[in-house]
Amino acid sequence: MEVTRQNFKETLPTIYSAIEEADFLAIDGEFSGISDGPSVSVLTNGLDTPEERYVKLKKHSMEFLLFQFGLCTFRYDQTQSKYLTKSFNFYIFPKPFSRTSPDIKFICQSSSIDFLASQGFDFNKVFRDGIPYLNQEEEAHLREQYEERRSQSNGAGTPSYISPASAKGPVNVPEEHKDFIGRVIEKVETLISGSEKTVDLAPCTGFQRKLIYQTLNWRFPKGLHVETVETEKKERFIQISKVDEEERRLREQQKQEREQEELNDAVGFSRVVHAISKSGKLVVGHNMLLDVMHTIHQFYCPLPEDLNDFKEVTMCVFPRLLDTKLMASTQPFKDLISNTSLAELERQLKEKPFKPPQVECSEGFQSYDTASEQLHEAGYDAYITGLCFVSMANYLGSFLTPPKPHISARSKLIEPFYNKLFLMRVLDIPYLNISGPDLQPKRDHVLYVTFPKEWKTSDLYQLFSAFGNIQVSWIDDTSAFVSLSQTDQVQIAMNTSRYAESYRIQTYAEYMQAKQRHTPTNRKWSEDGWAEPPYGSTACMATSGFSHSHSRSLTVKRSISPAEEDGPARYCQTEGAVTTGGWDSQGSAEKGVKKIKTDGDCTSALGQGCGQMGAVDSRTSDGWLKTQPLQEEAGPEDTNADMGEAWPQTSANQSSGKKGRKHKKRKTDSSEPPSSDLFDVPQVW
Amino acid sequence: MEVTRQNFKETLPTIYSAIEEADFLAIDGEFSGISDGPSVSVLTNGLDTPEERYVKLKKHSMEFLLFQFGLCTFRYDQTQSKYLTKSFNFYIFPKPFSRTSPDIKFICQSSSIDFLASQGFDFNKVFRDGIPYLNQEEEAHLREQYEERRSQSNGAGTPSYISPASAKGPVNVPEEHKDFIGRVIEKVETLISGSEKTVDLAPCTGFQRKLIYQTLNWRFPKGLHVETVETEKKERFIQISKVDEEERRLREQQKQEREQEELNDAVGFSRVVHAISKSGKLVVGHNMLLDVMHTIHQFYCPLPEDLNDFKEVTMCVFPRLLDTKLMASTQPFKDLISNTSLAELERQLKEKPFKPPQVECSEGFQSYDTASEQLHEAGYDAYITGLCFVSMANYLGSFLTPPKPHISARSKLIEPFYNKLFLMRVLDIPYLNISGPDLQPKRDHVLYVTFPKEWKTSDLYQLFSAFGNIQVSWIDDTSAFVSLSQTDQVQIAMNTSRYAESYRIQTYAEYMQAKQRHTPTNRKWSEDGWAEPPYGSTACMATSGFSHSHSRSLTVKRSISPAEEDGPARYCQTEGAVTTGGWDSQGSAEKGVKKIKTDGDCTSALGQGCGQMGAVDSRTSDGWLKTQPLQEEAGPEDTNADMGEAWPQTSANQSSGKKGRKHKKRKTDSSEPPSSDLFDVPQVW
Repeated sequence: MEVTRQNFKETLPTIYSAIEEADFLAIDGEFSGISDGPSVSVLTNGLDTPEERYVKLKKHSMEFLLFQFGLCTFRYDQTQSKYLTKSFNFYIFPKPFSRTSPDIKFICQSSSIDFLASQGFDFNKVFRDGIPYLNQEEEAHLREQYEERRSQSNGAGTPSYISPASAKGPVNVPEEHKDFIGRVIEKVETLISGSEKTVDLAPCTGFQRKLIYQTLNWRFPKGLHVETVETEKKERFIQISKVDEEERRLREQQKQEREQEELNDAVGFSRVVHAISKSGKLVVGHNMLLDVMHTIHQFYCPLPEDLNDFKEVTMCVFPRLLDTKLMASTQPFKDLISNTSLAELERQLKEKPFKPPQVECSEGFQSYDTASEQLHEAGYDAYITGLCFVSMANYLGSFLTPPKPHISARSKLIEPFYNKLFLMRVLDIPYLNISGPDLQPKRDHVLYVTFPKEWKTSDLYQLFSAFGNIQVSWIDDTSAFVSLSQTDQVQIAMNTSRYAESYRIQTYAEYMQAKQRHTPTNRKWSEDGWAEPPYGSTACMATSGFSHSHSRSLTVKRSISPAEEDGPARYCQTEGAVTTGGWDSQGSAEKGVKKIKTDGDCTSALGQGCGQMGAVDSRTSDGWLKTQPLQEEAGPEDTNADMGEAWPQTSANQSSGKKGRKHKKRKTDSSEPPSSDLFDVPQVW
Repeated sequence: MEVTRQNFKETLPTIYSAIEEADFLAIDGEFSGISDGPSVSVLTNGLDTPEERYVKLKKHSMEFLLFQFGLCTFRYDQTQSKYLTKSFNFYIFPKPFSRTSPDIKFICQSSSIDFLASQGFDFNKVFRDGIPYLNQEEEAHLREQYEERRSQSNGAGTPSYISPASAKGPVNVPEEHKDFIGRVIEKVETLISGSEKTVDLAPCTGFQRKLIYQTLNWRFPKGLHVETVETEKKERFIQISKVDEEERRLREQQKQEREQEELNDAVGFSRVVHAISKSGKLVVGHNMLLDVMHTIHQFYCPLPEDLNDFKEVTMCVFPRLLDTKLMASTQPFKDLISNTSLAELERQLKEKPFKPPQVECSEGFQSYDTASEQLHEAGYDAYITGLCFVSMANYLGSFLTPPKPHISARSKLIEPFYNKLFLMRVLDIPYLNISGPDLQPKRDHVLYVTFPKEWKTSDLYQLFSAFGNIQVSWIDDTSAFVSLSQTDQVQIAMNTSRYAESYRIQTYAEYMQAKQRHTPTNRKWSEDGWAEPPYGSTACMATSGFSHSHSRSLTVKRSISPAEEDGPARYCQTEGAVTTGGWDSQGSAEKGVKKIKTDGDCTSALGQGCGQMGAVDSRTSDGWLKTQPLQEEAGPEDTNADMGEAWPQTSANQSSGKKGRKHKKRKTDSSEPPSSDLFDVPQVW
């Protein structure tokens, strides 16, 4: 259903009830641009820390406009064994509420606009009919202003035009306007003596309107109601009405009611986001980090400076998020899905071993045909994102004994994917963990290199030609990260470069230390930061394996005891030492372990690792469990079946890191010249 | 005629010949916004210097997009005694030329967008079908890139995809892509052995395309042409063709020709602006400063830092400009026209004492009906701007003996209005003088006041309540200019404030001195700057009058001798001391002179003043006279009639300043409480 300013108010109840009855919600946003930075490569360095990436996105992406918002609600109908969907495609535009309300400026990126144009995007609907919105601060401010105006007005006409000087006496009308004002006074006198109740003056300049207000206010202090009326074509003219005191009061009251309603209208689309938030339901998106950031930024509050504060805000607004791109990039899906772009994912998830989801469009809603794609319409994208989630969730059910064809959105099987948002183009951190600390890969095979601005990638290849395969991640014109394939090469590179003049090499650890020294350390994470990683790397190596056989032998006991609230962050981090080991070391000592991983076997030690990880994961996500009703809506078949198995908890954590190492291993074994692409980083942007 | 990307190339010859045959051109632009500053009042302080205003506009307005450009050409047909018009309405959009070309970001201001939307503006036409453009630097850069690519390619397929590492040997294909690549190789082998000439591969990821290029380049170094093709929906797939060496070379050549043409297409709309510029014809606009700035910024070069450099660039691009808003705000029009907004001006200029211009739409061109307004469509606005100019120009002819019904666009009567662009909301400087030094009002009745940020306008009124009428021009939260009505009050105010704690008062001269001390003085104008005005104020007073009776008694001898080229700026400035006197002093000593002005009499002393001014004006505009063919196109009746009269030269210089004083005079005479509005500053934005 297409929702614009024209039908928004009448559609709102339908939207509310669709959210209310839904099992989960899928969302998608279309923006006026992606990045206002100098280039995407600067915006997305492959070795960004989550903090750095967040700061970059906040700085370079939030001034674009989210101007189309797709919401698709999915309700599972037990009797029909299928999902019923309701899809909404909202057009959004910050139409100024009044002449004094915020006049939003937003950036458009011509490549993004051109891309949307080529997809048939209707910009006229956005700019002419887009639903307005206010964030919470703007809403509060406007309500205050409104109250202030109301308490000041005392039933007087339009006091804003009366300046201190002119209120005291007759108005000083410049010579060339005297005739004009004289004619206005004549008209008013005719109005007063005649039988007409109202007279409309011809449109005139703002200055002339000001003179009229001042003159009439002084000459006719009572019995008139003077109002500036704006036509649809934005022409303003003055309307003068003859009123007695009671009517004047009545008009004032009507005006106030009208203003109050206008104010509610101005809150506009934010009301939909508030309803989604209040529902606490699972919100599914595809590659949704920017969608989430924009949604909060536009409809709640400016994004906080600090990543941890952002996580906190996000958990308040969207207590349960799931990113289908991250899910599809994680085992068991990763090996089955070659391309995780939304359209391709949807296509692949209709084919074996997956099953097309049983879904029907609710009555009265436009049904999308996935055969004739309407890609990049937000409502459609939200719809197929939901389809992808259903397919993948149901696929997880095939591992249960007995297998289950339908897995609910509240199933424990889904939980490992909660609140982990896909990170584009980061080599060794697959996701941003919204409800806990982020993965901290060691990066001890990474060098920070500075060089003259004339250097190109080929110069770096040449410089490091003795070290076999390297990977270059540009930072700016004169610096880059260089990832070596072997950690023990780092010291050799450092020694070799000692007397170099044109370039300079630091280890990643040195670089981060220097960086931290130059940044104010008011951030929480820097306390446990990079300089002294809190986890032991030996322990990590032993647990860095991953089970491909989907072991169901381990039972994870989930602790939801409130007693742990006191120190959850520290607790998570200590345990995190074990769980994040997968990203820890690139040393050659673990070759044996790698071999096992590549073959996909699951030893009991690795299984143990999985179990530990699962435990941490569940603790990490306690945050929302504590604020949300605990699984009370889940069907009994889900709760029983899911509680007894631990399989997917590790997958979200580990796939990408493992994959990277898998590539490297193979490259080292085959004596082929190394390729510069260690990872198949999805190219979606 | 509506011109979009679709019909641009076929329309270009029509546009060129319309410009070629025209007597003058009218232009108008529509923008995605006006100001990204915090508020219009900060952007347009009423006491900005021209330099300050230019810097503000450059800083706060150039990141908007000029996305509709109106051009209306006017050719005078002697036999029919009417103008024939051709109107073009161009939609402009910086569609990226290729994936490596500049990806323009531009700001949209929601109030501006909302305003255009309410006028029925078609945003889809802009974003889907807008004509691309390049500025001169971008064009040069792309041509270089293109040459570089051509010299590097040596006829090889698509070398950009071949990285140094992979070119040397077999390609390192990751395990999960081996099947995929294997299938591609099979397809190519089938192609080579079969009878088909071409095979299209299914769309795949960028990474997969890279692998395909690398693999095919290594396995089939000859006999194949591999190309990535992009569909209209932006899907990219690979097309492989079987070719022999000759065909390969031919294809390469075709590709280069295609690229060359694409590059010309990318220059796009800039070609129209180049043609306008090259024609050297009079370009008329309404309130056109922003139009001119945007046009240069978007289609020529980023605007220079310094106002004088901007003037120089502007004179290169548009050697003859005329602003109808400035013309209408100047005598003899000022007294006849109450509202200079474009729509109102057009309406008033159809009525007495003006005559509706004789204009007809050229064959094959959409004719605009001024009765059913299409305001704010750039083509229409350009058209009625031209109408306004014709009406006003012809009105000037009524003062000639014998009166002339038609005044050509090359008439000397028009020259005083050349290159003076209306300055919005500056109290005492009506225009920016593009071809000479700007007016330098003395502002010795102005105080610079700083105060706590809680202060409002009413606090300032109270503070200065003893001084009668004041005018407040806000600078920011804690400072404002306060204009007193009497210069001799300044010292009293300064004395009174000496011991004040909450606020601080400086004279305008002190303020400017302090400001200059804090700005690097690499600007030309600061040498002669504000601290020591180069003109004597006594001399100015005598010449500050202005003739209302349109004296034709003075013959102005125009010097166009090239010998003056050496020092024209200095020369202008010295003479400017006399001519700009009108804005010089607010002292009470000149009351008598004011009285004469108010009454509109012309004494011989004042007439002398007018004459001097005319002389300076003509010298100031020598710049273009030297670069343009001198009046050679002017009809003989114009040249004869116009050379003998000097009347309008002064009007453009003086009206606003005079008007301001006229008001003050009246206020001082009548003992009415003063109004805070000294000037009727037009409100168009």
